[in-house]
Amino acid sequence: MNMKKEIIVYSISDSLGGTSQKLLSAVTAQYPDIIFNNSYRFPFINKEEELLAILRDAIKDDALVISTLVDSKLAAVAREFSQANGLAYLDLMHPFFEIIREKTGTSPIEVPGTLHRLDTEYFNKISAIEFAVKYDDGKAPQGFLDSDLVLLGVSRTSKTPLSIYLANKGYKVSNLPLIPEVPLPQVLEKVDPERIIGLLCEPEKLSKIRSNRLNSLGLTQSTSYTDLEKIYEELDYSKEVFKKYRAHVINITDKSIEETAFLIEDHLKKLR
Amino acid sequence: MNMKKEIIVYSISDSLGGTSQKLLSAVTAQYPDIIFNNSYRFPFINKEEELLAILRDAIKDDALVISTLVDSKLAAVAREFSQANGLAYLDLMHPFFEIIREKTGTSPIEVPGTLHRLDTEYFNKISAIEFAVKYDDGKAPQGFLDSDLVLLGVSRTSKTPLSIYLANKGYKVSNLPLIPEVPLPQVLEKVDPERIIGLLCEPEKLSKIRSNRLNSLGLTQSTSYTDLEKIYEELDYSKEVFKKYRAHVINITDKSIEETAFLIEDHLKKLR
Repeated sequence: MNMKKEIIVYSISDSLGGTSQKLLSAVTAQYPDIIFNNSYRFPFINKEEELLAILRDAIKDDALVISTLVDSKLAAVAREFSQANGLAYLDLMHPFFEIIREKTGTSPIEVPGTLHRLDTEYFNKISAIEFAVKYDDGKAPQGFLDSDLVLLGVSRTSKTPLSIYLANKGYKVSNLPLIPEVPLPQVLEKVDPERIIGLLCEPEKLSKIRSNRLNSLGLTQSTSYTDLEKIYEELDYSKEVFKKYRAHVINITDKSIEETAFLIEDHLKKLR
Repeated sequence: MNMKKEIIVYSISDSLGGTSQKLLSAVTAQYPDIIFNNSYRFPFINKEEELLAILRDAIKDDALVISTLVDSKLAAVAREFSQANGLAYLDLMHPFFEIIREKTGTSPIEVPGTLHRLDTEYFNKISAIEFAVKYDDGKAPQGFLDSDLVLLGVSRTSKTPLSIYLANKGYKVSNLPLIPEVPLPQVLEKVDPERIIGLLCEPEKLSKIRSNRLNSLGLTQSTSYTDLEKIYEELDYSKEVFKKYRAHVINITDKSIEETAFLIEDHLKKLR
């Protein structure tokens, strides 16, 4: 029997504790043979006794402890306790603080949760998300003119998740599904071609994605939606549209949303 | 004249380079008096010559270099070059790898971009985002029954950004705006009260948020939308609705989306 190792991860923070999670995901993805149990999260820790109680539990659980505590006294307590007790402990913030101190002589303010301040950037991001939801799926084509990006593509070319992902980065994004039978909104002609992104996908892959979609909706019979010949027609039509509107075309086959978004941002940067 | 210090940050990665950015945001938020110029990103670095050319530029720019390179040879090259040349360099991945090696004897696979694999979790997240967009703003109340969460609140209580944020964490979320003049959909009576979240906000704050909203739309005259007395009425009505449907109520005043989402997740966890 091939048993996978399991590691319990304790995440300790003096705020919400979201900071460590993306890095943790990237790290754990490098260990396909280890199961990381990441359900032990300890947010809003600001007292030494609380912290020590958690670290004692971590010893019992033989856990790996990661900390994004900004308070230097608490961080020192955790570091010393871990060294004295052989606990696997990783501080994500203070090595960063140390290198900035060496470079500039400046110390961090050590105020927990500063990341979540309600500043202009924050509100711009919120508006961008509201914008993407409002102008999703060609619902209100007049929004195209206010958009940083207009995404075009046939059904299941990831227009909606891409719009939301880019909105999270502050871009105002609208999208329009391309359906051969449905005329295009006139306003599209007024949009700067550099801001129009055409999404393509290999026909076989698209058919598979659509079948999975129908299955997940409890529909199993084959329809023109998954018919390969029909998909070829749709994609040919979408290529004509991309050509007519001089869209920047991206093939999304086997790409994650992050990867496609990266290519779109790269295209935008070249425009500046 | 009070000049702020500026630090140029180089982000080097052998994949897209998104991993470091959340941690970097949390760190830089601790230095209100330093401007961090974070526009120098170097994704997909996998050759020693490329890497060394970037590090030489970093010396010229007196930059702080952060790396999420997973390749241990490249990471070693960067570390040694930085030590030899007094370059401020921080490796986010390998201290993590080291502590896992000590704990388990296991080495990372060192495959860049493993985070972006198209697995079940990934597709669940994509569906959740599509779900949130589809069932935003009470557009299709029948979706309430399939939702993990149904958010209720008057206009500008952050229902949409909250829905999207929670969808990013994999929850299926729908939301419904509460408008005294508009009858509630019957299906709401069939929703498990524990899954209904009522969003409240202080009236004065809400009036301010709504005024800002109108300003951003280019509207400046006062309307019943920003009228404090009208807002009191709306909020009283929403409290009645929350009571009737036994919603879990959260006051969003001065909270970030992340903070409110944290409280909602906390509530959900207690249900299990």
